Amino acid sequence: MKIKTIGIITKNADEIVEATVEKLYDYLVEKSYTLVFDPNADGLLSDKNITIQSREQLAKDADLAIVVGGDGTFLSAVRTLADYGTPVMGINLGRLGFLVDISPDEMFDHLDNILSGEYVEDSRFLLHAQVIRDDKVICEADAFNDVVVHIRDVARMIEFETYINSQFVNFQRADGLVVSTPTGSTAYALSSGGPLLHANLEAMVLVPICPHTLTNRPLVVNSDSHIEIVIAESKQTTSQVTFDGQTAFDVKPGDKISIKKKTGLIHLIHPATHDYYEILRAKLRWATHV
Amino acid sequence: MKIKTIGIITKNADEIVEATVEKLYDYLVEKSYTLVFDPNADGLLSDKNITIQSREQLAKDADLAIVVGGDGTFLSAVRTLADYGTPVMGINLGRLGFLVDISPDEMFDHLDNILSGEYVEDSRFLLHAQVIRDDKVICEADAFNDVVVHIRDVARMIEFETYINSQFVNFQRADGLVVSTPTGSTAYALSSGGPLLHANLEAMVLVPICPHTLTNRPLVVNSDSHIEIVIAESKQTTSQVTFDGQTAFDVKPGDKISIKKKTGLIHLIHPATHDYYEILRAKLRWATHV
Amino acid sequence: MKIKTIGIITKNADEIVEATVEKLYDYLVEKSYTLVFDPNADGLLSDKNITIQSREQLAKDADLAIVVGGDGTFLSAVRTLADYGTPVMGINLGRLGFLVDISPDEMFDHLDNILSGEYVEDSRFLLHAQVIRDDKVICEADAFNDVVVHIRDVARMIEFETYINSQFVNFQRADGLVVSTPTGSTAYALSSGGPLLHANLEAMVLVPICPHTLTNRPLVVNSDSHIEIVIAESKQTTSQVTFDGQTAFDVKPGDKISIKKKTGLIHLIHPATHDYYEILRAKLRWATHV
Amino acid sequence: MKIKTIGIITKNADEIVEATVEKLYDYLVEKSYTLVFDPNADGLLSDKNITIQSREQLAKDADLAIVVGGDGTFLSAVRTLADYGTPVMGINLGRLGFLVDISPDEMFDHLDNILSGEYVEDSRFLLHAQVIRDDKVICEADAFNDVVVHIRDVARMIEFETYINSQFVNFQRADGLVVSTPTGSTAYALSSGGPLLHANLEAMVLVPICPHTLTNRPLVVNSDSHIEIVIAESKQTTSQVTFDGQTAFDVKPGDKISIKKKTGLIHLIHPATHDYYEILRAKLRWATHV
Repeated sequence: MKIKTIGIITKNADEIVEATVEKLYDYLVEKSYTLVFDPNADGLLSDKNITIQSREQLAKDADLAIVVGGDGTFLSAVRTLADYGTPVMGINLGRLGFLVDISPDEMFDHLDNILSGEYVEDSRFLLHAQVIRDDKVICEADAFNDVVVHIRDVARMIEFETYINSQFVNFQRADGLVVSTPTGSTAYALSSGGPLLHANLEAMVLVPICPHTLTNRPLVVNSDSHIEIVIAESKQTTSQVTFDGQTAFDVKPGDKISIKKKTGLIHLIHPATHDYYEILRAKLRWATHV
Repeated sequence: MKIKTIGIITKNADEIVEATVEKLYDYLVEKSYTLVFDPNADGLLSDKNITIQSREQLAKDADLAIVVGGDGTFLSAVRTLADYGTPVMGINLGRLGFLVDISPDEMFDHLDNILSGEYVEDSRFLLHAQVIRDDKVICEADAFNDVVVHIRDVARMIEFETYINSQFVNFQRADGLVVSTPTGSTAYALSSGGPLLHANLEAMVLVPICPHTLTNRPLVVNSDSHIEIVIAESKQTTSQVTFDGQTAFDVKPGDKISIKKKTGLIHLIHPATHDYYEILRAKLRWATHV
Repeated sequence: MKIKTIGIITKNADEIVEATVEKLYDYLVEKSYTLVFDPNADGLLSDKNITIQSREQLAKDADLAIVVGGDGTFLSAVRTLADYGTPVMGINLGRLGFLVDISPDEMFDHLDNILSGEYVEDSRFLLHAQVIRDDKVICEADAFNDVVVHIRDVARMIEFETYINSQFVNFQRADGLVVSTPTGSTAYALSSGGPLLHANLEAMVLVPICPHTLTNRPLVVNSDSHIEIVIAESKQTTSQVTFDGQTAFDVKPGDKISIKKKTGLIHLIHPATHDYYEILRAKLRWATHV
Repeated sequence: MKIKTIGIITKNADEIVEATVEKLYDYLVEKSYTLVFDPNADGLLSDKNITIQSREQLAKDADLAIVVGGDGTFLSAVRTLADYGTPVMGINLGRLGFLVDISPDEMFDHLDNILSGEYVEDSRFLLHAQVIRDDKVICEADAFNDVVVHIRDVARMIEFETYINSQFVNFQRADGLVVSTPTGSTAYALSSGGPLLHANLEAMVLVPICPHTLTNRPLVVNSDSHIEIVIAESKQTTSQVTFDGQTAFDVKPGDKISIKKKTGLIHLIHPATHDYYEILRAKLRWATHV
């Protein structure tokens, strides 16, 4: 990783963000890096003549992206960065996140090391989903955590069939279905009762949400699987498909949601001391001792 | 139970309903019972000059109500009948239900017995819920299965505090919370991971829906408990409270949902051969044998 | 509660116990209470001429029993005390327990209040179990937490039928079955996937341990229910029944385990400030805040 | 797969086995295959002068092994066959199994096809486990389904630490831990609450058995992971490690169980019409239809 240009992606332009971004700016400019900011930074560092670019342009130009915010900001950034292979790291402003794992207190120590080449690279895959109606793709999107099909009306189940690599798996009545990457297995899939998948496992997990029968269990399949969910014609329930819980699209009976691994990985940059299980223990409140 | 007037409550006026209702009509008129129908029967038995009444009036006048339909029709009927203490039995038109447990094939045998006094009476409680905003009751409703607080926007959690008899229980982030009667413990509460409560247990169960932390478990409390759920001010998520999954009301941060056992029971009439566990075994697909 | 004689029941006679028991002794003798100790105290307070009695005699003589130890010591004491209706309170020596809820630091403050009549009494039921072979009772025991039927050989399932009030419930293949009181619902029943039952609920819960089918769920029934578990003849697996996980008895195919609510309650004495949900939150690591 | 010699491995020598084996013998001898039997066949086909060999020798000599029995017989056979790469297929005598998926009715049709080259080969990995005490390997065994560490005394928890690739994962109090292959994910791991892993996924799953805390979840990791479970010194509980639930070894506090993917795969031979999900649906009683 040879770094000249660094892209800064922020949550929004409030005071807490400003405090951290200003320190980061001074530190990086001092070291002669070229900085570009994404549009959320508009209004930040008003006395510093910063360069703001579209997120796509930033992804193209930057040799490293630094996300300043929470897991939500990170997820949103990653969906763009993945198209350009831009490595990315995260500085958390509130609670430790699963993804943004550097706190402002220690960011300079970690940056010193990372910029001098001491880091671990953690390459992960994303999902690419299409919604197909009458044989036409009517919606297309990526997800780093999960693609979720979910009822819109409270307490109205949806009915759907699942196919994997064109093989019929089962018919389910449920509130929905989560199709999650390993990264997403600590997010909504976990709330729905799914297992943890190690971050670097080449697998996806399908977790039913509030299934109507007792016989359902999460199903873990190879990341190369082609997953298709066909909303049954039998019920006129409106449902929705969401990508990382951030963007949503309405689906109707008969629609098919097709999910595959996205081509191209996202490269997360962690400090060399990064310990995946330590984050799990901290976030999931695992007992660590006698 | 001295029976002169029988109220017939139907799902709607389609052909399948007509076939069963006509047989029922002939059988009961032959035996000189007075019949009254609820408004859903409008259009049925067009050559028979039937008496249609509001459901409230039917509940007042009838000594026994017969629901012809599924568990959904039964739930809806019960919420009215409970106010008048009218005993009720159900004839299912499709699949065996947890509540409508007599099939059309065997209805005359069972009716012969029931009308001659051979039956078991199964008295159950309902929930009464109020939504309170700025110290005013803005919504009030009953539920036989459950009162559910649920997110409206897919994959946006709600945050809420639960109090029981004015004691703070916990703070939760989740997709929602089911407060269920024993009757409802085989419905949405079960899908959400709740236990089965025997139909006549004097208890309610609180089941979190897709809770954000791993430490949550269903909590079973006495049916005399006063349950209050306070939607946290911290998130501007819109959520909904539903009653038996049939009627819904929008709630906002700061709203309180107050739930108590309703005064007055509903009296379900079953054939003397009724076997509660047999229905559980059939519906839940329990193994019954070596 | 008029208190003259106080029974002290200790875990064993080690140094940590001695330190607390000595302070307790001085405090209570100063206030002119008569003290009796159970046999575990043998060796403690060697310079003080204490009275040691069998646990049964202590239960008869004492107006209040104080358990110094952990939940294990408390469970064991309660099974004797329940026969005599002796109220009991607990001082914990290590971690806060669900049952022993007073720490040594605050014991004098709490005792001052309790002995002057400021306390809450929390009456709970126990289970009484019999093992029946060839129509003869071959084992009989009480349990405050749970009666557990469990395989003895790792990874060999048992098969059993469950009856409630003589009605057949189901046939199961599993590692075992927990029949738990509300008190026990935070113990082994919870580990097996059971719900929490409020401590004063008049109910028991049946929780299958590692059931072989996916259709099983915990079942909560009235505390007046008569539960019978019949070990199937089909498999020659040896299994065991345990009472509070403290005493065990071997059972064979064909044996019946009969479980009822024990006659007579146990009266737990808590400080007036006792908060049941606070203990749940602390022990189960519930989130308590935004 | 060029087949001259076929090894027949039977459950035992009872009448039901005899009936099927005799038909199989006649069919295969007619087609001029050389047959060898494993020692369980002793007493079968007494009028036919069959060749009986040790299972190892059979594995060496046979070009295809046919297991006649249930999943238990198959598991036991596979642990030997895997060392020699002998392909294997199964004919079930009772219920359809996850592994023995050909019923006697259809065995000739399927064999016709398989022996003429029409089949699917399904290669799966096994686990290789070592028990290490005082730095010495004191037990070594393979497992196709799972390696399970489990308490021996009912309702006495064990405490253990888990390491993956030498990284500390967590400390747990539980009845045990299942480390399962995808093949084993429909067996004991499922009973313990684990997810389904597609049979060909390159992963293992760690499922805690009756964990003492609520924060545990199954963890799915890459099949190349080196898993180490260290029994804590803190409790003097005896526990056991079992391999496919068929062989057992006692372990003590301080012992380490080391688990890796075994070198060499086992090749399952299925009819070309084999449908993995169909077996899941049948065995797990999944709803298949509206």
